[in-house]
Amino acid sequence: MDTKAVAKAFTDLCKKGELAQAGDKFWADDVISREAMEGDMAKLQGRKAVEGKGQWWYANHTVHDVKVEGPYVSGNQFVVRFKMDVTPKGKTRQTMDEVGVYTVKNGKIVEESFFYGE
Amino acid sequence: MDTKAVAKAFTDLCKKGELAQAGDKFWADDVISREAMEGDMAKLQGRKAVEGKGQWWYANHTVHDVKVEGPYVSGNQFVVRFKMDVTPKGKTRQTMDEVGVYTVKNGKIVEESFFYGE
Repeated sequence: MDTKAVAKAFTDLCKKGELAQAGDKFWADDVISREAMEGDMAKLQGRKAVEGKGQWWYANHTVHDVKVEGPYVSGNQFVVRFKMDVTPKGKTRQTMDEVGVYTVKNGKIVEESFFYGE
Repeated sequence: MDTKAVAKAFTDLCKKGELAQAGDKFWADDVISREAMEGDMAKLQGRKAVEGKGQWWYANHTVHDVKVEGPYVSGNQFVVRFKMDVTPKGKTRQTMDEVGVYTVKNGKIVEESFFYGE
């Protein structure tokens, strides 16, 4: 699959609310996942670590709705926008507006990097 | 200015419709500008070349409206989404949905890369 095909299939799963399945299907074994923060979560590498981040996230957020836009494609990268209506554990319900920038190699996502709306 | 400050000031100008001025203020002298296409426009380097692309674009598109969202920030990069209601010369009015990924160094944009909605 080329980048456009990966971008479309990945984003289609996200649009169906199947974000974890989208990662499961397209993450490379040594995928790198970056967050816009300092500390342990800033850069994770490998499917196990990245799956662990997802499991932590779902355990600590109640997701009411996710609006997904994209993909936007250029070369071997694509961008997806996520607008999430969530309640983080112990906090108030809020909207998280973020984009993911994904890099594709051999039909798999080798890097994902999340950017947050200011 | 750090990346967050550049991202905010640049995006604020874009939101006012001052896209050319935003570039004028923040492009580094040797800025690289990438388009998601093959050929001469795929990669331009230097303010003159990038300004020329902008002039060509404005000469060949009638812009009815631009909706700007962002910025989304991570490290030394930020993302801006542009949804443009335009009529390209000799074509029919259409919506262009794209995102720009910008890389900042020393308070200037050293690279911009445009991704198009599929």
